[in-house]
Amino acid sequence: MSTTYATIAGLPTYVGQSVTVRGWCAHLRSSGKIAFIVMRDGTGLLQCVLVKNQLAPEVWERFASLTLETSVSVTGEVRAEPRAPGGYEMGVTGLTVLGASPLDYPIQPKEHGIDFLLDHRHLWLRSPRQVALMKVRHEIINAIHEFYGNRGFIHVDTPILTAAIGERSGLFSTEYFEEGNAYLAQTGQLYGEAAAAALGRIYTFGPTFRAEKSKTRRHLTEFWMMEPEMAFYDLNDSLQLQEDMLVHIVQRVLATRAAELKELERDTAPLEKIKGPFPRIDYGDAVKTLQGKGSAITWGDDLGAEDETLLVADYETPIFVCNYPKEAKAFYMKENPADPRTVLCADCLAPEGYGEIIGGSQREDDHDKLLARIHEEGLPVDAYGWYLDLRKYGTFVHSGFGLGLERTVAWVAGTPHIRECIAFPRMMHRLRP
Amino acid sequence: MSTTYATIAGLPTYVGQSVTVRGWCAHLRSSGKIAFIVMRDGTGLLQCVLVKNQLAPEVWERFASLTLETSVSVTGEVRAEPRAPGGYEMGVTGLTVLGASPLDYPIQPKEHGIDFLLDHRHLWLRSPRQVALMKVRHEIINAIHEFYGNRGFIHVDTPILTAAIGERSGLFSTEYFEEGNAYLAQTGQLYGEAAAAALGRIYTFGPTFRAEKSKTRRHLTEFWMMEPEMAFYDLNDSLQLQEDMLVHIVQRVLATRAAELKELERDTAPLEKIKGPFPRIDYGDAVKTLQGKGSAITWGDDLGAEDETLLVADYETPIFVCNYPKEAKAFYMKENPADPRTVLCADCLAPEGYGEIIGGSQREDDHDKLLARIHEEGLPVDAYGWYLDLRKYGTFVHSGFGLGLERTVAWVAGTPHIRECIAFPRMMHRLRP
Repeated sequence: MSTTYATIAGLPTYVGQSVTVRGWCAHLRSSGKIAFIVMRDGTGLLQCVLVKNQLAPEVWERFASLTLETSVSVTGEVRAEPRAPGGYEMGVTGLTVLGASPLDYPIQPKEHGIDFLLDHRHLWLRSPRQVALMKVRHEIINAIHEFYGNRGFIHVDTPILTAAIGERSGLFSTEYFEEGNAYLAQTGQLYGEAAAAALGRIYTFGPTFRAEKSKTRRHLTEFWMMEPEMAFYDLNDSLQLQEDMLVHIVQRVLATRAAELKELERDTAPLEKIKGPFPRIDYGDAVKTLQGKGSAITWGDDLGAEDETLLVADYETPIFVCNYPKEAKAFYMKENPADPRTVLCADCLAPEGYGEIIGGSQREDDHDKLLARIHEEGLPVDAYGWYLDLRKYGTFVHSGFGLGLERTVAWVAGTPHIRECIAFPRMMHRLRP
Repeated sequence: MSTTYATIAGLPTYVGQSVTVRGWCAHLRSSGKIAFIVMRDGTGLLQCVLVKNQLAPEVWERFASLTLETSVSVTGEVRAEPRAPGGYEMGVTGLTVLGASPLDYPIQPKEHGIDFLLDHRHLWLRSPRQVALMKVRHEIINAIHEFYGNRGFIHVDTPILTAAIGERSGLFSTEYFEEGNAYLAQTGQLYGEAAAAALGRIYTFGPTFRAEKSKTRRHLTEFWMMEPEMAFYDLNDSLQLQEDMLVHIVQRVLATRAAELKELERDTAPLEKIKGPFPRIDYGDAVKTLQGKGSAITWGDDLGAEDETLLVADYETPIFVCNYPKEAKAFYMKENPADPRTVLCADCLAPEGYGEIIGGSQREDDHDKLLARIHEEGLPVDAYGWYLDLRKYGTFVHSGFGLGLERTVAWVAGTPHIRECIAFPRMMHRLRP
């Protein structure tokens, strides 16, 4: 008789049939006459029931050899069981040990320190909370591809190794043959702008790097960013797109990852309130509001993490803070015609104090103004020749933004620290595993 | 009256209506009484017709100021016109110049040398052939996400900055705070294996790096790789998955990117023949066949590019070359029980001489054999402690592979050199723009 293999997620189609499932022991208990294996295979959890007097003695005895994380193959009939995790259980008829697991498995059902867990990230990933986070992340990535695919955006990959750079400090560098140093990209935006002139509406999605000595719960040295760039979009068009995108992401995760949100103990009520329009607050008004709330911020400063938390406390949706002072923002942002001290930009702050998840702007499309800004910032004009070309040959109104993936996952999953929102986080003191 | 903006791809829904399209002049001609702008906006090409005696004189005169790549806004009625590119044209009533373009636009309708084109990649991307290549690439990326999403695989991003490494030579390195050197990942596989133990079936999709001094048409220093890793898959399961994936990719591009394949002058007849099963050829047999065809290859050698071309000449589908000698392959591949001189692996060679597009294997799941291989290769055991843990705590049969994105694009698009298959290629002498 041939074996029917199934994943745990696939079991509902096999009720009443005998199948074989392979996975790892997540929990074991026995009363002497009946034993239970809660098994995980990455797709779900399955309660396997072994009844002593219904089993061959050698199968029953094999149960005693099992330990946490032993990999096993179990065979038996699938039954609906509302009280079991996932809603199904298996009446075991066969059990094979595939790979033993010594009793010193590092991650035990007790509290571990964060450094210990990060040192064992390759094993920590197997725990239910981490699995749920990875699935929420996966769903957000998919929601993004779906959103842009449906709108005819073209996915473009921009280079990691670059000579020209968008921001100047905190760069990782590497020797690049005879070309001198190459820098790891902090953004794909400048390349995205060139691609938008070719393809209209594009998005990049890749790793970005910041060699910054910051140790906050919101910083990684390597993180993933999704950066759309749209020809003929002004800032308002871009804000509308951001709003639509965030609503889509949250709706999709709510619709497809309820079990994971529950595992994460995420209160979904705040997520269900995420719908447009999102408030658009002028930077100047935000500063006044913050001062009224006791912040020491003065006009010209960027918003700190505490300011962000103070500001969003009044709202249930993400908010946009618009038109920052020129000095607080990057050289490529378009001067605000209504107030040239400021630029046409907006940061999107997530509700519940999760902070900035998007930064975006309309880009300076005037060749001479952009050149002047490059000079003002002391950037090497030579390196930006190709970028200036985009303003020389058929310049165009365009806007774009960058969504930080891990920060978005942290918000949607309700996780305070972004180090859990990526499989193998990289931080100042963390390069392993 | 408010303006109705449309993209060129969106015009079919506006036939008989007046809309405004923004884009760039791709081609201009005039007979003195009637003038044509072929306009591009990234979504398609639109023929705009200006009739002198139907236009305000200042609009007609504006046409004379247009040059290649001038950005414009044109307004007029959309008409079906089978002879026009895209099948529609516009009877222009309004024309506004958005951004002039000097007559020295570097990419002219003539032959340019490849170095010149690569130096101007930010503008070269705007030409029809490059736009088509970027859209085929986009479609292949989307086809991959769709394929794995439908099968319940979880997308996992693995780190670029790594301490432990899969292959030893050709590494880019960067200083990493007080942690010493970090290396840019050549593969996400080892991390993918850890993720497969947590999530069952996963895929990574990100940039990978090779600091190799090779200047062939098939090498980039930075390229994108998609790497699935499947718990409880043996090599045969993995080959079946690869076959299904490649058929899906080719079918989707044929179905959705016919216009782009035509622009690329891709003969689609060979693509239409891509269906399973793909031949699975033992390495030893391949060597004999190649020797029979005059190759100097001997048992133990890896296949060279010329060998690959010789071998695939007999087939219309991709082929798998299986079970290479251990010495020719990486340390983590599982020893072949039927012939321990070899490992359970397979390279997938594209038809028509496009060469290797996939390399994959069943992974060594025996802790002690893997440790012995790490010692044999002189790899630092310390750095691989976490990787060995995957064999210590509940080891499991698993397999995976890596698909080179640019090579796959080159094959599907029928492009001999992969430097055109990524927006901003990075090669030994090419770090700009």
